[in-house]
Parts: sequence; C-alpha cells; structure tokens
Amino acid sequence: MKLEDIYFRMRRDIKEIEKEISMTIATDQKVLHQASHQLFKAGGKRIRPVFVLLAGHFGNYQFDKLKKVAAALEIIHMATLVHDDVIDDADKRRGKLTVKAQWDNKVAMYTGDYLLAKFLQLITELENPEIHKILSKILVSIVEGEIDQIKDFNNWEQSLKQYLRRIKRKTAILLAVSTQLGAIASDAETKVVRYLYQYGYNVGMAFQIIDDVLDYTGTTAQLGKPAGSDLSQGNITLPALYAVHCSDERDQLLELIKNDQISEKIDQVVACIKRSDGIEYSKRLAQRYIIKAQEALEKLPNIKEKETLFEISEFIAKRTY
Amino acid sequence: MKLEDIYFRMRRDIKEIEKEISMTIATDQKVLHQASHQLFKAGGKRIRPVFVLLAGHFGNYQFDKLKKVAAALEIIHMATLVHDDVIDDADKRRGKLTVKAQWDNKVAMYTGDYLLAKFLQLITELENPEIHKILSKILVSIVEGEIDQIKDFNNWEQSLKQYLRRIKRKTAILLAVSTQLGAIASDAETKVVRYLYQYGYNVGMAFQIIDDVLDYTGTTAQLGKPAGSDLSQGNITLPALYAVHCSDERDQLLELIKNDQISEKIDQVVACIKRSDGIEYSKRLAQRYIIKAQEALEKLPNIKEKETLFEISEFIAKRTY
Repeated sequence: MKLEDIYFRMRRDIKEIEKEISMTIATDQKVLHQASHQLFKAGGKRIRPVFVLLAGHFGNYQFDKLKKVAAALEIIHMATLVHDDVIDDADKRRGKLTVKAQWDNKVAMYTGDYLLAKFLQLITELENPEIHKILSKILVSIVEGEIDQIKDFNNWEQSLKQYLRRIKRKTAILLAVSTQLGAIASDAETKVVRYLYQYGYNVGMAFQIIDDVLDYTGTTAQLGKPAGSDLSQGNITLPALYAVHCSDERDQLLELIKNDQISEKIDQVVACIKRSDGIEYSKRLAQRYIIKAQEALEKLPNIKEKETLFEISEFIAKRTY
Repeated sequence: MKLEDIYFRMRRDIKEIEKEISMTIATDQKVLHQASHQLFKAGGKRIRPVFVLLAGHFGNYQFDKLKKVAAALEIIHMATLVHDDVIDDADKRRGKLTVKAQWDNKVAMYTGDYLLAKFLQLITELENPEIHKILSKILVSIVEGEIDQIKDFNNWEQSLKQYLRRIKRKTAILLAVSTQLGAIASDAETKVVRYLYQYGYNVGMAFQIIDDVLDYTGTTAQLGKPAGSDLSQGNITLPALYAVHCSDERDQLLELIKNDQISEKIDQVVACIKRSDGIEYSKRLAQRYIIKAQEALEKLPNIKEKETLFEISEFIAKRTY
C-alpha cells in the first residue's frame, strides 16, 4: 500500500480534523486570523492526526474525542513551527512565506502564543485529566528542547547523546504522544498504550534523523533550499557530528570550520561530511529506530491499522524527500 | 490602613505562593531556569495573588487551592511580560535587566513559551473544568490584545473604544479573573463571584489608565525612564488620544507628529499633551472606574477583606508611582 492510499482512505476524517482546527483558530483579530490560517494551510503531512486516528482503532474508536486530540496536537505543532521560524530566520516553509517573513518576528511570536492559548482552550473541552497532564508535560519538554537547540548552535563539541535528546524533544515526543493519546482517548489497554507510544517515539526519531540526512543529500529542488542549510544556520546534526567525532575527515573538517565562517565554505564542508561515513551511519541508526518501532508494533493485536502503521514506518525509512 | 500593612498581614501566604511559583518554574535547562527566575525575582506588587487571596475569603477559604490559582495567574503575567519586553524593545523592567536584554529576543520568546507551558501544567493540577475554561479563555484575550496593541502602534486615528478594549485585555481582565477565580476556588455564591469580577475589572481599568497618565506626569526617577516613553515607542494612550481628538491642541499636535519622528520632538509633544485637558480627563475616567469598583464592593458581605479591597481601590486611584 502506498502512502497516498493511506491518506485517501482516511481523507474524510482528516478533513473533519482540519475543519476543527480551522474553527478553533478562527478569530476577529485579523492579523492573528490570517497568520494562523496561513500556517494552517501550509499544511504538511498531518502525520500527527493520522497517528491519533490509527492508534484510536486499538481501543473503542470514538471519532469525536480523537478529533479534538488530533486538532490539539496539530495546533501545538503549528505553534512550535511559527516560533522555530523566528529562531531559524526562515523565510519559507513548504514553499510558502513564513509568518515572520510575511509579517515580522513580533507577529510570529504572538501567533505562536495565540495558538498555544487556543490549544489550551481546546484541551479544556476534553475533560480528561490524564490527557491534560500528558499534553502539558510535552509542551514543557518541547520548549526545553528548543532552547537546548539554540544553546547547541555551532557547538561541534556536542555529543551524540545531546543530539538524540534534542531530536527527541523536537520531533519524536510529539509523534509518540500522538499514538499514545489516540489509544488513551479510546480507552485502550495500558500495554497497548505503551507499545503505541514506543512505535510513535521510534518512528519519530527515525523521521528526524532522515530529515537531517536529506538536508545533506537532497537537491535544491527537493528541499526548497540548498543542501547544507541546517549547517549554514549553525544546526549541527548527526552526519556532521559523526564526521567530526568518528571519521578520518576530522582534521580537514576542523580546519574548514575553525573560524566559524561556515556558510562561506558550505559546499566544501558538505563535501567533507559526505566523504565521511556520516550519511551512512545516520541511515543505519534511523533503520535501527525503525526496527524498534516495528518490534513494538508486533506486540499489538492484529488489526488492519497495524499493517498501516507498518507501511508508514517502511515509508519513513526509505523516504527521499 | 496603608498598602504596606495589607502586604504585611498577608506576607506568609504571599511567601508560600512565591515558593509555589519558584518550584513550578524550576528546570534543569539552565538558561530557562535563570531567565524565568530573573523575571520572577523582578517581582512587582504580586497584586494578582493578593486579589486571589482576598477574594477567597468570600467563600470557603482553602489556601492550598488558592495558592495554585494565584501562582498560575502570576506565571501567565510573567509570560506576557517577557514577550511584551520583546515588542517594546525594553532593556529594563523595575530597574533590572530584562530577559531580552540580558540574553536576547529568542531566549525571551522561549522563556515566555516555557512559562505558558508551566502555567498549563500547573492548572492541570487544579482539576476544576470551570477554572480551566476561564484561564484558557483569558489567555486568548490577552494575546489578541497584544497583537491589537502592535496594530495600534502610532495610530493616532484610533478611538477611545479601541484604547479601552486594549487596556481591558492588557491589564483589567487578568485582575478581574484574579478576584473571580479566588471566589470560584472557594465555592463562593454566583452573585459574589460576579461582584468580585466587577471589582477586579474596574480596578484594573483604573490601574492601567493611571499607569498611562504617570508615563506623562512622572519624573525620570519615579518612572525609571523619561516621561513620554510610551509615546516614543508608538504606544498612544488616553492623554494623547484626548489631546488629538477632543482638545484645542489638536492642530499643533498634528503638526508636531506629521512626519512620524515623534521621539525627536518628544518633549514638545509631551508639553502639548499636558496643555490639553488629557491628563485631567484620564484621571476623571480612572476615578469613574474606581467608583464602579467600589459600587460592586458595596454589594458584597461585610467581612474585613471587603475593607481591604476598598483600601486597595483608594490607593490605586491616588497612586503617583
């Protein structure tokens, strides 16, 4: 089954969730309305809603509950994106102007605040203290991760552990919580909730590692930005860390980066990292996370959504864009 | 009774609330910890906690519940302050360096996000859906108000109504909700809750109007910044709006501001606004809000905290710093 088929089968429910998000973020305040809807329409894969819905089938599937959980997670995600764009000084996201580019950093800041406020408002409708607690906890983790990311900018001394901790907070936690909450909102068994969490977490780790690899191996057309953009901005990801810590390219790389003017020599730096085993190492690590995700899946009951989650994990391991 | 006496009498409970805030915002992430504690220590009058506690006496006073409500409101307030400092480009607040000055705008942004996340985490402990709903709703209002404030920057055409709506969201709502939630958390009667809300709201409106007046009439020593600072930054408050819309100074003022280089002529602009009746008009309007607050108070049962709330309203009407 292709990814498109999965989305096609779920299209009605995803549309409903999108309607819920759109209604939730609607406001008379024009700038906030336009900015948050621009962000919303830039869309993306709606992977969090997909995970919530699929996980919901492992319990007593109630779409009305799942819809709100999925919308809340997507809104948190949007809030972090708009604040990330300020940090990354990003003018485009998925080919569209970012809020900070179309308006400015201040509007981007308040649009993020607004989305967090709306997120809070949405979850008060859920009236499930367990879900509240999980959601408020991950929000803290995400923000701590974002400030760690700033701290680790241009830090070539950071360890692999620091990198993994950062991508956990940046990406994996929100995916883990998507499957977890889908199961909890459907009153699934505790064990089932735990395995679904593990699936989401491991897929999320693999997803971010592959994302970081693609920043080196993708073409400008595929990425919508030149290769090595993360690095130019000071975001040192796994391929670069491998190259500097574990490869023969170490000395040459240190020479290239010694005066911090990386962006001027970005092509040389990227070439050097590619010569190291950094890309292959990263892909292997991503593959290990995919296997762990699939091991968690195996322990789940055999329903057809289990197969779908398996397909998604396979797709993430192999994606090239 | 003096304001100091009120604080002295409540000092133990306020200390406990401060401890709750400090524990809530503690984190291993060094920058977030330092930045949020710096903000916390800059302190201020803790007027929201004071309102929560005083209102709590109109019902079944349970300090443990009130403590969490008060801490949550103070944390929301801190989050909006740190984001405001980014908008206002403010280097100092209450004589201390702001987060954006000591670190930078990005740290200030994430410190605000972090505080909002912690706020959310704190209110999940309250397990009272009514309180959740009120708190999530005001957060939306506050953010909408902040973006309105940006929109209204340097807008001399704005109406009195726009100004009032803005200060409602900037200041009055949070004070209104402080007395309201203090009463709700103590299971006070519906009517009592309503009157306490009205008291907080009207005192809040008066407080902000007086604050805006003091920006014109205070000395640099009193304000910690030169008179007319709001205006220099483009924040057009009531005295200026009165001068341009309702006074004989209109033509001269329009001449002074016509090329938008206000900060260069700030002394002349301030003098012109002072010559209009703008300061007196604003004070009269503040006084009207104080009277409304006191009318709401009159309908409340005669307990000693009613007297205290009366004293606070009197103080706010007359304050000169």
